[in-house]
Amino acid sequence: MKPFKQMTILGVGLIGASLAQSCKKSRLVERIVGFGRNAANLKKAQERNIIDSGSTDLKTAVTGSDLIVLCTPVGVLVEQVREMIPFLQDGCIITDAGSVKGPLVEEIDALMPDSIYYVGAHPIAGGEQSGLEAAGVDLLTGAKCIITPTANTQTEALQRVTEFWAEVGMQTMTMDAHEHDMVFGALSHLPHVVAYALMNTVASVKTDNHGDILSLSAGGLQDITRIASSDPVMWRDICLKNKRPVVTLIDQFQETLANIKTLIEQDQADALQKTFAKANGHRGKLVETNT
Amino acid sequence: MKPFKQMTILGVGLIGASLAQSCKKSRLVERIVGFGRNAANLKKAQERNIIDSGSTDLKTAVTGSDLIVLCTPVGVLVEQVREMIPFLQDGCIITDAGSVKGPLVEEIDALMPDSIYYVGAHPIAGGEQSGLEAAGVDLLTGAKCIITPTANTQTEALQRVTEFWAEVGMQTMTMDAHEHDMVFGALSHLPHVVAYALMNTVASVKTDNHGDILSLSAGGLQDITRIASSDPVMWRDICLKNKRPVVTLIDQFQETLANIKTLIEQDQADALQKTFAKANGHRGKLVETNT
Repeated sequence: MKPFKQMTILGVGLIGASLAQSCKKSRLVERIVGFGRNAANLKKAQERNIIDSGSTDLKTAVTGSDLIVLCTPVGVLVEQVREMIPFLQDGCIITDAGSVKGPLVEEIDALMPDSIYYVGAHPIAGGEQSGLEAAGVDLLTGAKCIITPTANTQTEALQRVTEFWAEVGMQTMTMDAHEHDMVFGALSHLPHVVAYALMNTVASVKTDNHGDILSLSAGGLQDITRIASSDPVMWRDICLKNKRPVVTLIDQFQETLANIKTLIEQDQADALQKTFAKANGHRGKLVETNT
Repeated sequence: MKPFKQMTILGVGLIGASLAQSCKKSRLVERIVGFGRNAANLKKAQERNIIDSGSTDLKTAVTGSDLIVLCTPVGVLVEQVREMIPFLQDGCIITDAGSVKGPLVEEIDALMPDSIYYVGAHPIAGGEQSGLEAAGVDLLTGAKCIITPTANTQTEALQRVTEFWAEVGMQTMTMDAHEHDMVFGALSHLPHVVAYALMNTVASVKTDNHGDILSLSAGGLQDITRIASSDPVMWRDICLKNKRPVVTLIDQFQETLANIKTLIEQDQADALQKTFAKANGHRGKLVETNT
């Protein structure tokens, strides 16, 4: 594909820095500018040759770029787009890495002038770690990237953005933005909320002789709570932006759990075993389809 | 310590077979007899020199043994003790590997004749795998083993059993049986129930274009649901045997989750971030105390 002249990455953290490294490796862009609030972080990224220059000033950072990639938390993303529009050159393409798509895509679409093009994307990568230090050229390679075009999406921009994420090394696929939010609400947002809630519940249990029971735990608890180590600000924003699907999914989960509780209370051994066996089967399928 | 002459292991699965291998390695017992319902499994264990002989007949399996270790699911354990008592020799010591202690310890204590001694134990080992194939000589090494003596526990038997689990390579510690059930209800039983419920909830989500969303998932879901691959019969029995603590803990978890849901619904960004950050801190402590 024809390389972009200058890409600005907003948010040089786990996803942003990994993306920059992949772009450098594949020579997808001629120049990379980093934007962020933390000058020391930008300096570090520049010293490590992850970005070519960095700025804490949005106007400076986006001026002259023909590709903007928003890797900032989904809570600030729309405001940043609104703020940068006056400084963007004609033909500039914007894409993002936000974990929520429906409301973001609608709001950003509505902001777009005629000569600026936005195509929503969600690279499914990352983990409980965050920040520049955890970034790496392999993070995005082979992972899925969901592209969420709308009726307003310009065909050529869609093609350019899809090619861009594919050249980064990702498996691109297209999905409706609202469908995306329900699917990843279930696969990712609900599990994070559950992990945070479980971690807080377990840590609050005290007995006569054990004010702190965590030191007695085995491996199972560490795995199930791993994603409770994820960045609180990022997940606060995701839950608030994807409110409706997340609340619906919490309701569904609470109902499923309440049913299991009833089976336990009523000693319904067969039905309980059947429920657990069903989960067993789903987990087997999950592992199978992901290896 | 003075070795036992003959140990019978009930249930030659993950824990039973691992224990047998550890005992062989440390020459803790002169002879190991396996008991189970599955003759083929016993034969395999004998061929691999994990046990010296095996029997599907309880009388045959326990006759002549001075140590009995119950590694069968907690739902059948008390009945098996009741059934074996007529065939046990004087001075015989019984211990177990059950994940629930309170009700089991009380029921087994009440069954004990004068010359037979029971000391409850819970080796904190295992994982989502089960069965002979997953067993290994290292499974128990270095892990914790909770010993749950009661007012009825004979001092010498307590000492022998504690030494036994220590010589197997485990870190032994003493705990009240009911306290044990609340602590491990929180650290282990609740997380399993949550994992099963989460797996079933996520797998039931369908959208217009995705009848099966599991193929779209990333790594986070696999980790949080890992223990949903655990044996349904074993966990059915644990939940039913430890009913009161498990139900109480499900209630506490549901309340914590409902609070998070309210914060999301009401857009309480600061409180939501604080809740997630608290979980973050607990998880950090959990990892720290377990490495």
